[in-house]
Amino acid sequence: MGEFELLARIRERLPQPGPRVRLGSGDDAAVAVPGGATATSVDALLDGVHFRREWSSPAQIGAKALAVALSDLAAMGAEPGEAYVVLGVPTDLDEDGCMELLDGLAAIAAETGTTLAGGDVTRAPVLTLAVTVVGHAPGPERFVTRAGARPGDALVVTGELGGAAAGLQLLGSAKGSRSSFVPHSHTKDERTASLIARQLEPRPRLAAGRALAKAGATAMIDLSDGLGGDAGHIAEASGAGLRIDAAPLPIAPGVAEIAQTTGRDALQLAVSGGEDYELLAALPPECLEAATTDVEKQSGIALTRIGEVVAGEGVEIRRPGGGLLEPTGFDQLG
Amino acid sequence: MGEFELLARIRERLPQPGPRVRLGSGDDAAVAVPGGATATSVDALLDGVHFRREWSSPAQIGAKALAVALSDLAAMGAEPGEAYVVLGVPTDLDEDGCMELLDGLAAIAAETGTTLAGGDVTRAPVLTLAVTVVGHAPGPERFVTRAGARPGDALVVTGELGGAAAGLQLLGSAKGSRSSFVPHSHTKDERTASLIARQLEPRPRLAAGRALAKAGATAMIDLSDGLGGDAGHIAEASGAGLRIDAAPLPIAPGVAEIAQTTGRDALQLAVSGGEDYELLAALPPECLEAATTDVEKQSGIALTRIGEVVAGEGVEIRRPGGGLLEPTGFDQLG
Repeated sequence: MGEFELLARIRERLPQPGPRVRLGSGDDAAVAVPGGATATSVDALLDGVHFRREWSSPAQIGAKALAVALSDLAAMGAEPGEAYVVLGVPTDLDEDGCMELLDGLAAIAAETGTTLAGGDVTRAPVLTLAVTVVGHAPGPERFVTRAGARPGDALVVTGELGGAAAGLQLLGSAKGSRSSFVPHSHTKDERTASLIARQLEPRPRLAAGRALAKAGATAMIDLSDGLGGDAGHIAEASGAGLRIDAAPLPIAPGVAEIAQTTGRDALQLAVSGGEDYELLAALPPECLEAATTDVEKQSGIALTRIGEVVAGEGVEIRRPGGGLLEPTGFDQLG
Repeated sequence: MGEFELLARIRERLPQPGPRVRLGSGDDAAVAVPGGATATSVDALLDGVHFRREWSSPAQIGAKALAVALSDLAAMGAEPGEAYVVLGVPTDLDEDGCMELLDGLAAIAAETGTTLAGGDVTRAPVLTLAVTVVGHAPGPERFVTRAGARPGDALVVTGELGGAAAGLQLLGSAKGSRSSFVPHSHTKDERTASLIARQLEPRPRLAAGRALAKAGATAMIDLSDGLGGDAGHIAEASGAGLRIDAAPLPIAPGVAEIAQTTGRDALQLAVSGGEDYELLAALPPECLEAATTDVEKQSGIALTRIGEVVAGEGVEIRRPGGGLLEPTGFDQLG
């Protein structure tokens, strides 16, 4: 199958473009009419680096590629708009595999209101995806960067932490191929399945990000590297210090058991394990109540206060009993 | 060297962002304020598929990746705006090689007024680039698609054809590594060097594309697959037939000799050899004179009338003496 045939088959399956897109895939470029300001981010995912084909179905891989790209838009408080997808196809992924991958990608696009507006398909030695996403806001000042955290701001995190890292531990310990260990189908243990889904099927917190932006977030980042590391990015960009209490950290159910089994510290896993794709935000304490209500209402996701912004620099994460946790250092993919 | 260190070194070298960019590389997303409509295109280039590291220096590879992406914007008549670059780095490309590649990319950015606004760096089994470019126009109707060619329109092409395909023949016949065959340094034969440069160092026809759009082009495409194949894309999108005369085709100097040496037909090479990255446009005959003058004035590049749009479908390319040329089929990279 040639590139043109594959592109034609892909185009047939694309959902209708959104209102901003005037010309979709199939010309030299896609044409859009943005309504103010755009936020653009690009993410690459490669087999063996960011995912493993023996752990993930093509649909999961396509879905994850778009989800992690959109997670950056969530962290800006942007409304998702268009996605442009580079697909590098190895010889051992057939046309049906490509279509399954695209269906996974298209499902996330439909779920989030994103238009797949263009792309490029090429041969590649390993399955390679590069996804560019464009998000929108009425004006540039409406986006939330990493740089606006001020001393006195409260620190909040969405959802639950440590699940993706625990899921990775489970996948790694299974050491099996997809046929012997089928994480994307039913398993007896729902909690195990849920942790593995946190690793293989992340979802961008777009509604929560927009609610946080509207509620007055001064800085925001998505947790791809891990809470400690990503908190460091906010601290550096904002020229402030971040003090985090480990006691209230919303650790995903099952993480403690996995940590125990593998001889790890559950808190350490929640703090330095990556790929949860939750949001960490700073906001004035007086905005906290409204933010919590709005995030819950818009996204069904809980917001947890985990610390505060202080004058100074760096990230300090206090253990419940005293002492400090290492902000980074847990193994992860990518 | 970790990803963060490499990103920091890259950021240090980025030129100042253009006026539309409010927030460049280093946050979750780049923020821009587009001034009307955008044209967005994405191109992937991989070692062994679209280029060969034994033929090209890192600077040439970086430059080509951005140039071919921008060529799609040239074909829309867009003003170049921002570029987002995914760089997949294999273990045998060191930090200096990455910086050289980025310098090549930045040189094209500076030459064309493009802002390198963001990107992603990852490990990869082979050198991998994916470049997303965003171009601008005051409104969506100002972009020239492939779909507007009408019977009676004249067909024009910018610059010269066949050079990149002849350059590829020269590179292929040399069979040497970069050390034994140094195409990116001085060679005794300027004409040979110029043909190889057409293959390794393409330049996007941005000024010519904007001039053609302004002069009333009804359809336009850049010649990446080759004149015959790309003419077919215009014919299909426009629902019209394209009749091309091979006699006036502007064949690059030296192509005839290379064709003779390798037992190829020079016209066939010019018609079906890809990667010249010239522009093929349709426009009403009454716009032809002004278009020719403007393209020459804005870009220093000659416009050649090579045929016309007719009712019907498909592409017909007539040999000077009679008979038809095959529109596609010449070997090429990619």
